[in-house]
Amino acid sequence: MSDAASNATGTVVGVLGAGQLGRMLALAGYPLANRFVFLDTTGNPSAGIGEVMILDSKDQQRQLEDFLAKVDLVTYEFEHLPVSLVQAIEAHKPVYPSSEAIRVCQNRAEEKALFDRLGIPTPAYRLVESAEELEAAARELGTPVVAKSVTEGYDGKGQAVLKSPDEAKDAWASIKHSRLIVEAFVDFVREVSIIAVRGRDGQVVFYPMAENQHVDGILRYSVAPLPDLDDSVQQTADDYIRALLDELDYVGVLTLELFQTRDGGLMANEMAPRVHNSGHWSQDGAVTSQFENHLRAIQGLPLGDTAARAPTCMVNVIGREGDSGEILALEDAHLHRYGKSERAGRKLGHVNLVAPTHKALMEKVRACAALLPEAPSPKMSFED
Amino acid sequence: MSDAASNATGTVVGVLGAGQLGRMLALAGYPLANRFVFLDTTGNPSAGIGEVMILDSKDQQRQLEDFLAKVDLVTYEFEHLPVSLVQAIEAHKPVYPSSEAIRVCQNRAEEKALFDRLGIPTPAYRLVESAEELEAAARELGTPVVAKSVTEGYDGKGQAVLKSPDEAKDAWASIKHSRLIVEAFVDFVREVSIIAVRGRDGQVVFYPMAENQHVDGILRYSVAPLPDLDDSVQQTADDYIRALLDELDYVGVLTLELFQTRDGGLMANEMAPRVHNSGHWSQDGAVTSQFENHLRAIQGLPLGDTAARAPTCMVNVIGREGDSGEILALEDAHLHRYGKSERAGRKLGHVNLVAPTHKALMEKVRACAALLPEAPSPKMSFED
Repeated sequence: MSDAASNATGTVVGVLGAGQLGRMLALAGYPLANRFVFLDTTGNPSAGIGEVMILDSKDQQRQLEDFLAKVDLVTYEFEHLPVSLVQAIEAHKPVYPSSEAIRVCQNRAEEKALFDRLGIPTPAYRLVESAEELEAAARELGTPVVAKSVTEGYDGKGQAVLKSPDEAKDAWASIKHSRLIVEAFVDFVREVSIIAVRGRDGQVVFYPMAENQHVDGILRYSVAPLPDLDDSVQQTADDYIRALLDELDYVGVLTLELFQTRDGGLMANEMAPRVHNSGHWSQDGAVTSQFENHLRAIQGLPLGDTAARAPTCMVNVIGREGDSGEILALEDAHLHRYGKSERAGRKLGHVNLVAPTHKALMEKVRACAALLPEAPSPKMSFED
Repeated sequence: MSDAASNATGTVVGVLGAGQLGRMLALAGYPLANRFVFLDTTGNPSAGIGEVMILDSKDQQRQLEDFLAKVDLVTYEFEHLPVSLVQAIEAHKPVYPSSEAIRVCQNRAEEKALFDRLGIPTPAYRLVESAEELEAAARELGTPVVAKSVTEGYDGKGQAVLKSPDEAKDAWASIKHSRLIVEAFVDFVREVSIIAVRGRDGQVVFYPMAENQHVDGILRYSVAPLPDLDDSVQQTADDYIRALLDELDYVGVLTLELFQTRDGGLMANEMAPRVHNSGHWSQDGAVTSQFENHLRAIQGLPLGDTAARAPTCMVNVIGREGDSGEILALEDAHLHRYGKSERAGRKLGHVNLVAPTHKALMEKVRACAALLPEAPSPKMSFED
């Protein structure tokens, strides 16, 4: 029935990237008898589990060969990799999702073009290649606009908000990229995301949508499921992400971040071809976590139930850690530390909180936030 | 509030033993920012995670020093260790539970004496040191009796059942130990176990009792919570294990296996000073798993909620594995493979099945058993 099933020593999964997402993939994969080899391209691996190999500029060809010799298949936790590298790997071992999915997802212009082609609404946008074009786009779209580098955007880096077209020159200089995407602001009610998983056989399962609260471009809170989400909205999100998965012949977890507007409609913001911070709630709040489902998908195993067990909130721990003892004294609190040292703006861990009702949940979230030195005030739209 | 809380790189836990229990401790401990170093004394480590060090006869003193230099505190997943070794470790690093707990738990005579002293009922027993004494004990207690070596009993090894006193000579020869404990048979309705956790501050929490089905001395199924368990029986079990924990000034998870008799009463069978196979259901069926709670306890962190989320059954995978794909196609099935190669009688993994009712659960258990090549027919007393 499945390739990986009968081998007692288990499938060895190669992971491109070696941060906390890889760490959590590994924690979900050991029980499936997987072993893990990480390939770090950043010089700063933090997975702290499995075997970490380094890809640097010194002897790349041999480093890559060593990595490939150890693994049965390859996936990634970080999409800002040279497509040529992924293609080179694909020539030797199965890679899920494919280099084509990475190519599209790592480029905002490609991504928008795909959304347009599949009829997935997005904020109005322009592509610009100079400060002058940026200024013209800001005028056309009407400020404020947000300008983002077309590639390598990550957690609010390489972005600027223009309150007036006059700010184009400074914004262009600060972003330091030759090609930007300029987007009109959307009058949204909340930021949401949908995570779905597609198997090697084309089966697709969908997680309940999450509401996400960002501060300064960094995710701080995700709640799922949502108490006030119309079934038709979840269905629309499911349809959008299924279209993306099928179009890309995608295998694994895909995340689509969306804005929900006042009329209940959805507009795509961006997508990530991997397990995602807004899906961490599933570790303790869903029948099957996004990490396990990604591993099931890429190994050709049946996908697990994505249903939520109870209202759950993921609280990110950023910059400085709280006292573990105080956090663990909260009832039904699940701490996930990444074993990293403290640094401003750094994702150090998260806490999943589970409660029988959304009211009880948000009380618990506030109690948890009070224990974290740098947690902003949680504010979810469904509390209004 | 807690010793381990503020150190971003986390507490390094040394584990005596390097099998699947250590593996599952590590999987529960990485999210607490723990790292793990295993000390293997068997020559056959299977943890497959963390760092494994070997303790053999060659240069024990240096090996032990190397191990101790790497760890902040020590626990174990295997209690059949020389007490002198644990005492030597205790002189340098905190060990939880203490060498005294190991000393008592690894010796059935000590264990029984402790049960007697605390007023915990046990089957009638005798200690014997020769085939002649064994024969006399069998006569006195009335056959059948079970004879067990006083030390190193594990999973039915070093045991014999005597159907008549005449079998004493053969039984004595087969067990090959100088001191045996001989126990009367108990007319029990079912085998149950209670798992409790005691913190460094003396706080105790109790898991719901499990019903356990053994075949040939090997655990095959555990179900918790039980649909037909009187609160007073759980309370009695709680009282028994609390008495043991307090008497031993115990820190960590302790397991007490019991017989439940026709009148609803409980008789202690044996205890294990560690996380236990009959508590594996807690990984997917309880708010906090036995593994996480053991780690919380030994680090001085607050203990987690032990409540069951839903009826859960742990199905052991023994000897030969089933097809992972078929098992994972069962709804709310959680596979835990240990990464070991197949061998008759070997524990290779387990499957935790969760269902909304006990009826639905047992149907799922039968479906799962049908997928495992060597699974016996599941039979729980509450189905009668």
